[in-house]
Amino acid sequence: MSMNIPRGTQDILPGEVEKWQYIERVARDVCRRFNYKEIRTPIFEHTDLFLRSVGDTTDIVQKEMYTFKDRGDRSLTLRPEGTAAVVRSFVEQKMFGHPSQPTKLYYIGPMFRYERPQAGRYRQFVQFGIEALGSNDPAIDAEVIALAMEVYQSLGLKKLKLVINSLGDKDSRTAHREALIKHFEPQIEEFCGDCKSRLEKNPMRILDCKKDREHELMKSAPSILEYLNVESKIYFEKVQAFLADFGIEYEVDPGLVRGLDYYNHTAFEIMSDAEGFGAITTLCGGGRYNGLAEEIGGPDTPGIGFALSIERLLSALDAEGVILPLEDSIDCYVVALGDQASAKAVSLVQQLRVNGVSAEKDYLDRKVKAQFKAADRLQAKLVGVLGDDELERNVINIKNMDSGLQEEVLLTDFINVVKEKLK
Amino acid sequence: MSMNIPRGTQDILPGEVEKWQYIERVARDVCRRFNYKEIRTPIFEHTDLFLRSVGDTTDIVQKEMYTFKDRGDRSLTLRPEGTAAVVRSFVEQKMFGHPSQPTKLYYIGPMFRYERPQAGRYRQFVQFGIEALGSNDPAIDAEVIALAMEVYQSLGLKKLKLVINSLGDKDSRTAHREALIKHFEPQIEEFCGDCKSRLEKNPMRILDCKKDREHELMKSAPSILEYLNVESKIYFEKVQAFLADFGIEYEVDPGLVRGLDYYNHTAFEIMSDAEGFGAITTLCGGGRYNGLAEEIGGPDTPGIGFALSIERLLSALDAEGVILPLEDSIDCYVVALGDQASAKAVSLVQQLRVNGVSAEKDYLDRKVKAQFKAADRLQAKLVGVLGDDELERNVINIKNMDSGLQEEVLLTDFINVVKEKLK
Repeated sequence: MSMNIPRGTQDILPGEVEKWQYIERVARDVCRRFNYKEIRTPIFEHTDLFLRSVGDTTDIVQKEMYTFKDRGDRSLTLRPEGTAAVVRSFVEQKMFGHPSQPTKLYYIGPMFRYERPQAGRYRQFVQFGIEALGSNDPAIDAEVIALAMEVYQSLGLKKLKLVINSLGDKDSRTAHREALIKHFEPQIEEFCGDCKSRLEKNPMRILDCKKDREHELMKSAPSILEYLNVESKIYFEKVQAFLADFGIEYEVDPGLVRGLDYYNHTAFEIMSDAEGFGAITTLCGGGRYNGLAEEIGGPDTPGIGFALSIERLLSALDAEGVILPLEDSIDCYVVALGDQASAKAVSLVQQLRVNGVSAEKDYLDRKVKAQFKAADRLQAKLVGVLGDDELERNVINIKNMDSGLQEEVLLTDFINVVKEKLK
Repeated sequence: MSMNIPRGTQDILPGEVEKWQYIERVARDVCRRFNYKEIRTPIFEHTDLFLRSVGDTTDIVQKEMYTFKDRGDRSLTLRPEGTAAVVRSFVEQKMFGHPSQPTKLYYIGPMFRYERPQAGRYRQFVQFGIEALGSNDPAIDAEVIALAMEVYQSLGLKKLKLVINSLGDKDSRTAHREALIKHFEPQIEEFCGDCKSRLEKNPMRILDCKKDREHELMKSAPSILEYLNVESKIYFEKVQAFLADFGIEYEVDPGLVRGLDYYNHTAFEIMSDAEGFGAITTLCGGGRYNGLAEEIGGPDTPGIGFALSIERLLSALDAEGVILPLEDSIDCYVVALGDQASAKAVSLVQQLRVNGVSAEKDYLDRKVKAQFKAADRLQAKLVGVLGDDELERNVINIKNMDSGLQEEVLLTDFINVVKEKLK
């Protein structure tokens, strides 16, 4: 009988969870500044959605999905990524009909992929991502990239590397696709089974293969940039001009191919340049996916977005030695001596709490010394000290733990005095 | 091919999601004041955990779980409630060894039950809950109840009804159990199949049956309160004394039996008393579960907690007509006229955003009038207006949308002037 945590997942406990909360607050604040609104879609979707959108030649769909039948015999899948569901919702909820366009959305939540667990890689992981649907303006591409950079920079990361590429429009991709087939076909027998089956279906995916990355044909493969038509070229130049204007440094890497089927035009990744970060340095990936909304039953709508993993972000913060400004002290601890004083302390603590003050007391019948220790551990700013003697005289002592100063006040004044001192 | 949202789940969209965000902020703030820390456990657990903890005679386990095998042939279940996983984590992560005791935890997240979808009832729903592990002090029972009440009251709910009961300790429950069997056995054939099978396994569950609630034996069933031993009685009295001291009104209902197997001593529910709230009025349920930690492999540890559904909370807010104080305006919208001005506006908006100001512009090549309309829709506080003429003179107009006042400033001063005006 196994009741341990499932393999590849983690508990996030107090002491660590405060970092997650802080990161989420920052991400939400950046989204507020960039005018992106939150959307929450279900944890699972119909499996068909991912087959259609993520693409059935991808590793995710072929090997990594948590797919199951519910009691009504529907095939459901725990979402392996966020974009498909957001676009599904955009289509199903007819958001394209809303007067505010483009539709700018963000999400934060768990995603699920059945991968081999390893350092920094989990089967349940948390992604923060955004999607901008409904605009073909290169300024939106730059905005999406700028938002990701701003999240990292607001958190204090400095060693970042932004890599961009263009996958071009449909015509450009078709031309590139033919060139790729021509390039790989003569020697395809030297490649892995996945690559072989991808040659006809989706040859660009070969460039993404982890097994064959050292093959000589990889480096000499025709670059998408040589196959961009004029419109795609101009589009890509405009995106770059905006980035330059924003003061955001970047590199163009024609080998950058995103792992999902639905991308076109701008693709980008942000990597950590920090020493000792480990092998997986990609923090964030995104790109344009014009046509995805139509693919899943909606009107033809341009779209662009990115997703980043909070787990990787935490690793990057670690690698750069960034200390997040976490506040974790308590306003007031009430130390009580004796049964009656202890009962009164319960009441005082409750009054503090409903008056906006964070407060704590002992619930284990501990001696005064141990109670003071607990107050220290919680970094209490103030400590109220109440014995049966004080209780009889209707007073309580307040100690300021910073200054060490002590003061006796009437019990009836206690709440107000504490509030005053905390100002 | 189905790509719609799965039955019984919902998308939470902008316009509605702000309420969820607000409620979560309030819940987190109340937890801060009461010194509860967040814990995040995985979305799924080994199925065994729920069989053992929730109990295999419950509706949840028998009918409502999303159970599936992963690719490694493990039986996993999407969590139907939060307590089991928190206690599993408390045991597995050895939190009982931490010097800060009791361990006070909260969680907010999705839970999953395969129920017939109906108004206000979803297959994926969000629960906020707390658990206090490690103390047997009746003050903790009162604190847990007070925290739930404080969340509702902080949100503006007034029509609340708190119902409490004691299920007693093991001895009390054993005595009561025997009395129940004696009471129901002679007429058990008149009850539903579930009740029949529960008679020996867990007769208290019969009191919870929805099908047989009108049977005459239900009302005359022996009350647990008559079977409480002295310790259990004193414990329950102390809890009530604290509640009275806190000024929290309550009713004692000996028929209150929580739907999970693991409860003892204090049990409570908070209901909405608002008119037109509908049939399901329970907003929150909780109770003490001494022994659960031991049941799943940990040391013998007292525990108590509650869970409440955010969906029901939203219904209660609706029923009482509470308007949450949501802020949803944008600081500055930049209207641009002409290609060059539009490109410059992209840059200005980016600068505002990285300077902490929420800002927006048009990305659809809309005319000036439509851009002003968009600014109105976003409730922009300030609107910058930039034409190619202003651009040439290196200036921009700033309009205060409240006062209607307009002002021309140097482009180089724009960011600082906007920041100043927003103070």
